[in-house]
Amino acid sequence: MRNTPVYENILIVGGGLIGSSIARACREYGAAARVVMTDRDTAVRTSLRGLDICDEVSDEANPADADLVIIAVPPGSIADTAKALLLHMKPGATLTDVGSVKADVVDNIAPHLPDGIEFIGGHPIAGTEQSGPEAGFASLFTDRWCILTPADAQSAAAQTLEKFWQALGSRVEFMDAKHHDLVLATTSHLPHLIAYALVGTATDMETVTRGEVVKYSAAGFRDFTRIAASNPIMWRDVFLQNKDAVLDVLGRYIEDLTALKKAVRWGDGDTLLKEFTKTRDIRTRIIDAGQDSPEPNFGRDVAGEED
Amino acid sequence: MRNTPVYENILIVGGGLIGSSIARACREYGAAARVVMTDRDTAVRTSLRGLDICDEVSDEANPADADLVIIAVPPGSIADTAKALLLHMKPGATLTDVGSVKADVVDNIAPHLPDGIEFIGGHPIAGTEQSGPEAGFASLFTDRWCILTPADAQSAAAQTLEKFWQALGSRVEFMDAKHHDLVLATTSHLPHLIAYALVGTATDMETVTRGEVVKYSAAGFRDFTRIAASNPIMWRDVFLQNKDAVLDVLGRYIEDLTALKKAVRWGDGDTLLKEFTKTRDIRTRIIDAGQDSPEPNFGRDVAGEED
Repeated sequence: MRNTPVYENILIVGGGLIGSSIARACREYGAAARVVMTDRDTAVRTSLRGLDICDEVSDEANPADADLVIIAVPPGSIADTAKALLLHMKPGATLTDVGSVKADVVDNIAPHLPDGIEFIGGHPIAGTEQSGPEAGFASLFTDRWCILTPADAQSAAAQTLEKFWQALGSRVEFMDAKHHDLVLATTSHLPHLIAYALVGTATDMETVTRGEVVKYSAAGFRDFTRIAASNPIMWRDVFLQNKDAVLDVLGRYIEDLTALKKAVRWGDGDTLLKEFTKTRDIRTRIIDAGQDSPEPNFGRDVAGEED
Repeated sequence: MRNTPVYENILIVGGGLIGSSIARACREYGAAARVVMTDRDTAVRTSLRGLDICDEVSDEANPADADLVIIAVPPGSIADTAKALLLHMKPGATLTDVGSVKADVVDNIAPHLPDGIEFIGGHPIAGTEQSGPEAGFASLFTDRWCILTPADAQSAAAQTLEKFWQALGSRVEFMDAKHHDLVLATTSHLPHLIAYALVGTATDMETVTRGEVVKYSAAGFRDFTRIAASNPIMWRDVFLQNKDAVLDVLGRYIEDLTALKKAVRWGDGDTLLKEFTKTRDIRTRIIDAGQDSPEPNFGRDVAGEED
């Protein structure tokens, strides 16, 4: 469906998976009249020009005409990018980002906001394990949640940004930045850390070869490798920025894992069965909420691809 | 494709995901002339009769006519089931199983083997998070590995069982039972324990609601819930039977996770980046080996299912 443009002029800074998907979605759903993109990497700019997914690819980030500026760079570069952009943005414009950690960014940018410009933290809960401008697609945000962390959810800027994400197909939720970071530490950051650690452990075993790990990965391991294939720079930044919340949930997790370890050591089948049974409920709820596919094995057909 | 039957008469004891899939595959690929199934659960037997996937569903396990008896019950019940079957099997017949742990079962059955009957441990590396006779399908084993742990890989019984699994579409590998248990502890048992623990941690957080966990699960968590939705009885038995290997890899894993925790606490971005980068290689190898789909997000289209 096409929408009336929510913004006249948008500047997207950063042409990776998320930035390029926003540009594609803007065009597909008519969410903005004009979209300019930029990226500090020459090769990415060249790719973006070849992909033809926006109205202009600019060598420099020039936000002077933009009604909305979207920062889609790795979390560790967001605050510095924001400070540079704020020097040249026009009054009444909105600055937002798409980073996975919110409180750190909000706290860092707030002191640098000129009168008349609002910064609203944003985080589309969408993505894949792939990176770069070619990996993006227009429907990435369709029916996914986008969390916004405005200082004032009732402000005109927040309401307009909500309409923009809805135009891209998202469901929007306003949330306190610190609470966002704790929720995502649980549902995203901890799962990624766990997966990275497991892939490291499995590849470092001296009694099991890497060939064996690869060969018999279908028994569970392969799902973790997908998660652990995500953009390493982005994830480094996430853990540096969301340290406190990650250490909190990670501490709890190690406690729970240690309890299971003790049950294994003592042959305590009752405890194991109880723990393994209670986890089924949440899976059912996730499928009912449309947040995952009910198909077994995510419906993947690996064997078929080899034929 | 249809094969010349590898066995005349097969008895499958246990009609769950694996047992019922073997029956379906036998019929689809002509791997056996006649297949009889049994299950100690009346409801499962009724389901099996309704599904019509074998030649006969028997109320009692009668192995007297079977050239091959396949035990497809939870790991904790395999040894007792085997002992009862061995009393009535005919000379020259082969007994096998499909359990996820091998050394414990092999050690428990060996002293009870009469002359002329061979037990060969088996483990098809195939399955989904779903359970029961309705969850099975004929192509479950297609291009998947099946590990066999015969006392003598050159025996006629081992060679025939290899042909049988190949007729079902599998690739067969012979392996020492103890080594199997260590490999699978790494690629399967540890990933499942980790996933069960994470789902437990996330659902027990008092600062993040279950509704929030469900809503924002697409950011990584949901993949773990699929794994943690697997059959709890089977997994309890796996951890009880493969205690030593699981405790070994779990100990290494907790060390690796603790090292990442320390890097997060100290803000050591270089270590995080190094660890997050080295995990990409194994993902590529798994996809190249045909053990996973290269599609982003496993190609799942959740949004589409809601339309």
